[in-house]
Amino acid sequence: MIKIAICGGSGYTGIELLRILSGHPDAVITAITSEKSAGKGLVELFPHLHKYKDLVYEPLNKEKLLDKADVFFLALPHGASQEAVNFFFRNGKKVIDLSADFRLRDPETYKDWYGLPHDFVPTLKKAVYGLPEIYRNKIRKARLIANPGCYPTSAILGLLPAIKGGLIDLSSIVIDSKSGTSGAGRKADLAVSFCEVNEGFKAYGIGTHRHTPEIEQELSSLSGKKITVNFTPHLLPVDRGILTTIYARLKEKTDTASALNVYKKKYAGEPFVNVLAEGVLPNIKNVRGTNFCELGVKVNERTNTLVIVSVIDNLVKGASGQAVHNMNIMMGIEEDRGLGSLALLP
Amino acid sequence: MIKIAICGGSGYTGIELLRILSGHPDAVITAITSEKSAGKGLVELFPHLHKYKDLVYEPLNKEKLLDKADVFFLALPHGASQEAVNFFFRNGKKVIDLSADFRLRDPETYKDWYGLPHDFVPTLKKAVYGLPEIYRNKIRKARLIANPGCYPTSAILGLLPAIKGGLIDLSSIVIDSKSGTSGAGRKADLAVSFCEVNEGFKAYGIGTHRHTPEIEQELSSLSGKKITVNFTPHLLPVDRGILTTIYARLKEKTDTASALNVYKKKYAGEPFVNVLAEGVLPNIKNVRGTNFCELGVKVNERTNTLVIVSVIDNLVKGASGQAVHNMNIMMGIEEDRGLGSLALLP
Amino acid sequence: MIKIAICGGSGYTGIELLRILSGHPDAVITAITSEKSAGKGLVELFPHLHKYKDLVYEPLNKEKLLDKADVFFLALPHGASQEAVNFFFRNGKKVIDLSADFRLRDPETYKDWYGLPHDFVPTLKKAVYGLPEIYRNKIRKARLIANPGCYPTSAILGLLPAIKGGLIDLSSIVIDSKSGTSGAGRKADLAVSFCEVNEGFKAYGIGTHRHTPEIEQELSSLSGKKITVNFTPHLLPVDRGILTTIYARLKEKTDTASALNVYKKKYAGEPFVNVLAEGVLPNIKNVRGTNFCELGVKVNERTNTLVIVSVIDNLVKGASGQAVHNMNIMMGIEEDRGLGSLALLP
Amino acid sequence: MIKIAICGGSGYTGIELLRILSGHPDAVITAITSEKSAGKGLVELFPHLHKYKDLVYEPLNKEKLLDKADVFFLALPHGASQEAVNFFFRNGKKVIDLSADFRLRDPETYKDWYGLPHDFVPTLKKAVYGLPEIYRNKIRKARLIANPGCYPTSAILGLLPAIKGGLIDLSSIVIDSKSGTSGAGRKADLAVSFCEVNEGFKAYGIGTHRHTPEIEQELSSLSGKKITVNFTPHLLPVDRGILTTIYARLKEKTDTASALNVYKKKYAGEPFVNVLAEGVLPNIKNVRGTNFCELGVKVNERTNTLVIVSVIDNLVKGASGQAVHNMNIMMGIEEDRGLGSLALLP
Repeated sequence: MIKIAICGGSGYTGIELLRILSGHPDAVITAITSEKSAGKGLVELFPHLHKYKDLVYEPLNKEKLLDKADVFFLALPHGASQEAVNFFFRNGKKVIDLSADFRLRDPETYKDWYGLPHDFVPTLKKAVYGLPEIYRNKIRKARLIANPGCYPTSAILGLLPAIKGGLIDLSSIVIDSKSGTSGAGRKADLAVSFCEVNEGFKAYGIGTHRHTPEIEQELSSLSGKKITVNFTPHLLPVDRGILTTIYARLKEKTDTASALNVYKKKYAGEPFVNVLAEGVLPNIKNVRGTNFCELGVKVNERTNTLVIVSVIDNLVKGASGQAVHNMNIMMGIEEDRGLGSLALLP
Repeated sequence: MIKIAICGGSGYTGIELLRILSGHPDAVITAITSEKSAGKGLVELFPHLHKYKDLVYEPLNKEKLLDKADVFFLALPHGASQEAVNFFFRNGKKVIDLSADFRLRDPETYKDWYGLPHDFVPTLKKAVYGLPEIYRNKIRKARLIANPGCYPTSAILGLLPAIKGGLIDLSSIVIDSKSGTSGAGRKADLAVSFCEVNEGFKAYGIGTHRHTPEIEQELSSLSGKKITVNFTPHLLPVDRGILTTIYARLKEKTDTASALNVYKKKYAGEPFVNVLAEGVLPNIKNVRGTNFCELGVKVNERTNTLVIVSVIDNLVKGASGQAVHNMNIMMGIEEDRGLGSLALLP
Repeated sequence: MIKIAICGGSGYTGIELLRILSGHPDAVITAITSEKSAGKGLVELFPHLHKYKDLVYEPLNKEKLLDKADVFFLALPHGASQEAVNFFFRNGKKVIDLSADFRLRDPETYKDWYGLPHDFVPTLKKAVYGLPEIYRNKIRKARLIANPGCYPTSAILGLLPAIKGGLIDLSSIVIDSKSGTSGAGRKADLAVSFCEVNEGFKAYGIGTHRHTPEIEQELSSLSGKKITVNFTPHLLPVDRGILTTIYARLKEKTDTASALNVYKKKYAGEPFVNVLAEGVLPNIKNVRGTNFCELGVKVNERTNTLVIVSVIDNLVKGASGQAVHNMNIMMGIEEDRGLGSLALLP
Repeated sequence: MIKIAICGGSGYTGIELLRILSGHPDAVITAITSEKSAGKGLVELFPHLHKYKDLVYEPLNKEKLLDKADVFFLALPHGASQEAVNFFFRNGKKVIDLSADFRLRDPETYKDWYGLPHDFVPTLKKAVYGLPEIYRNKIRKARLIANPGCYPTSAILGLLPAIKGGLIDLSSIVIDSKSGTSGAGRKADLAVSFCEVNEGFKAYGIGTHRHTPEIEQELSSLSGKKITVNFTPHLLPVDRGILTTIYARLKEKTDTASALNVYKKKYAGEPFVNVLAEGVLPNIKNVRGTNFCELGVKVNERTNTLVIVSVIDNLVKGASGQAVHNMNIMMGIEEDRGLGSLALLP
């Protein structure tokens, strides 16, 4: 059994890890932390997690935690994660960090977008960006995974085949994303209160969202060229799900069947990416509670534009599910262990 | 492996059976029927069920189906189920009927409430009402299970300990139920269209809902006296979940702790009923996607009334999950096989 | 023009007053207060209220406000309202208090349920409970209106004809209410965050909700006997609306048509109560944004029980609309002035 | 009083006309038609429209209707509207057509996208596209208004200042729209049933939606050049509201303040367009139930792209409210008559 510690286990990504791992035959949770709820039983906060009735939140005492687990999942706020990641990594543990602290390879970019210096650059150099569809081989050998952001996961998977296949004009990319409200986290905040979100819809952070440099880093790395993108997130009045609509000018005239073919080839054999048939478009509801990314591809021949629609569950493929996928790869076990359940629909 | 046929597999209870059984280590689906979609692949209708990419809907040809499976789940409309149930049962198969056709032991009552004669009374006599918390021993030996209705499951589980414990005045029972919209089935109907249901809430069928005699039959059977109840269903603007609030006058003065004690004792050891601690009340969100029933109990001492709140997922404990639970009991395997996943929250 | 001050104008009842009064031909808002937002323009907080672009929040300085208005609407928290109401009333102003501070005629009952002493009992004696369907004549001559609570409005209007008509056993009343989330107010609170409320449904405060004594006071006053009731509120995942389902044993056998007749007669001529035809049941969606109460009435002859379903918009008939109705009566103008708009549907 | 007939009055745009006109001091509804509900009272279908208790649906008998009204609003399906519009127009009436039949000036384009010939081209030549912000002067003198589509209204108002101001590269326009479900109409259809739409989100009709040529016609007309656009609609799980996010490359480097200035100047004096301050972005909830369009403007200097966010209520500014606005202009009365109410929020 893999012994697992979850640091920062009272937010939505933390309890999603618990939900997923409760069905993982090789995993056992040996510790869970929460500063605010230290001393409380897990089920006091979350009665629906009754399988974990013996788990009690403890404070994040790194030394005390060190020997309790083999794998450390960190679901701490950005900034707060740096030191803990460094500690567990430097002490020989496997670490999967769900914060943004180790995603941006360039510490200057990190500083520009997050407003903080990166204090552990040597450790940062060891981090592997945990998108298995790109970095599977590196993940296999890694001890530190920077688990991707939810928006970047949906956007990068949507663009990967088009960029690798040389289909599109790299200067023309528009990424219009819509996320369910759980993406904002579990918190008391008027802006995410029911009456403000329900029956509403809005854009936010146009051109300034912190997932922008993460998307650009990976697309630039895929293409070998510096790419900037237009990225706009929106807030959907649903619990879960991200749908990202991507537009890019085609380099040459092509049709939907040909573009789809590039996508299907690229993702053949991927356990968690489904490229839908021509004429079928994805719905966030079809991936709810699952680790799947579904992609719809369409060429608009009137405007010579490739349009890709990418959907994921932001808490699963966009966070905790991908983290478990990364763990499975690191541990050399079947990739879909614990991740096989189908969407809860309706 | 248990070979399973699902008759009527294109509605919400049908696809919920598929979702649940996809995680059942001992089950394999060998046939699925739909009159309207016969000839179509399952994933044409439901892309999210990609694990079943080889299943094709066939028409309900009883003779042809007979040898394909050991256990037959029937999710057909009321009335349409009678003959098929009788056929499979008379030919030696195990049958779990999710319709109402075999729930009412008295064919006259069936006729009164459903407007149809019962044409297979000898088979009806063999049916066991599939509420494991009452009939576990009979289910073990049964070959025909009448799977309970969703409202009755929530109401009966809420009242069982109070009635068996002799706590309440049997003439004073009020059952006020609220159900998610999936309870209405998967269909094109203006009354369940998004813009009619969303941001709305209404009662319907006051005193006339067909689940009334089913509730009364079981409560009467528990108490040994003829019980009539006030039952009012309401339509909630959510996908899944039933919350039933039950009121009954207490025979003698008591307090919440004592009443709770009766409930906790009665359900000790039950794998799918959780009696919550004093002061904690259930939420449908905490059982979403699971086979659990959660119960909150409160004595209103000012009015000498017992108030019970009971929640289930109408598609799981209220239909397909309970059906799988019944199968597990009939087959002599662990009761929670395939039913262990935790609630999808948020 | 009637000059109006709103004290506590940054909550949902405050902005609902502004919305309603923006269509009132005789009203002008001359002052609005908010401690937290003092100094800010109203449209900074609420861009959708652009008609009020010149209104600026000021702190609640009673002396300074006194001369600014003829009518004072107070939408302050319970407890905080006492002193301000007393001040404006004692200085000759007309006061409509939307808090609970002047609703309970017995200061001891107030203390028992709200945990606070009432410091202004002589003023309390002058307050009229602002339910026009009962107290229209008193309201006409009043200078201090205790605007009813949302749940009590729905419950009392639902029971009034049955009690006045002597139809029901007064010891048997069950009031099962379901309210939209705006009833919890505008605030940063995890319990009303979108992901906690959406797709959820729960009961709360069984037997202990503070609206209980308010309902009992008015029902007792109507009947001339001391009545206690079972009252259970629930939280609906919608913005607005209360639906209350009421059960009471009938004193004598009767049928739906006869009971309906009692209701229709009682409310004939009432501008804001609609008794629906036999067989028709109300939906909160049909009163959204309006000051109407809709009532459905049904006799369950099997159990000899009267079932009443009452719906209102909790922010309109349950708060700000009823407050404006009371103002219209006090000022001797047409009762439906500013309150004529139809439901926003869908 | 203006006598008004509504042809096709049982859909969402029909009842929205009734809701809006119920507050219009100069309007009286003299006839309403519905083929399916002919003979039924309006309130049988829509109890919430109790102000119209004397209105009875009649079949669309053009000759019989002719003398009943001065202004004819037609909310008929596309195709079905052609003949009726022509008849009322040729007989001297004022006609406001909410279908698409008279929006496309080129009958060939109409045929290409709607699959139908246009049988009344001489009448088509007389139609004025009813977007007051562009065609106010023509509307004043018109007798036939082609009321704009919902998506086009949001998109054209979002782009108008940028195009007239020469800010953007006309070949680079991406229009990503998200609409509430009422846009799909009032109908029994599995695809818009609650359980399919709720908690879901999807794109549809990428590059093929029939509002595309309408948008292109007006943008081309504004710029004097042939423009094609990428237009993608999505289905939001809300009742009402469209949010359109628009991307276009800037011709020259500029900043948000300068771009905003162009927008503010262009719409100065417009009664129903609000350009929000820098840093503020619109939300569909802020225009719910109103005739307002709210615009947020942002320059992404990293990518040299203008991003515009435009929101409307699809049933008001996107349909019935704009139709009433057009009527007011045609009749020479105040433009905002009957259209002054503020958003219902929450």
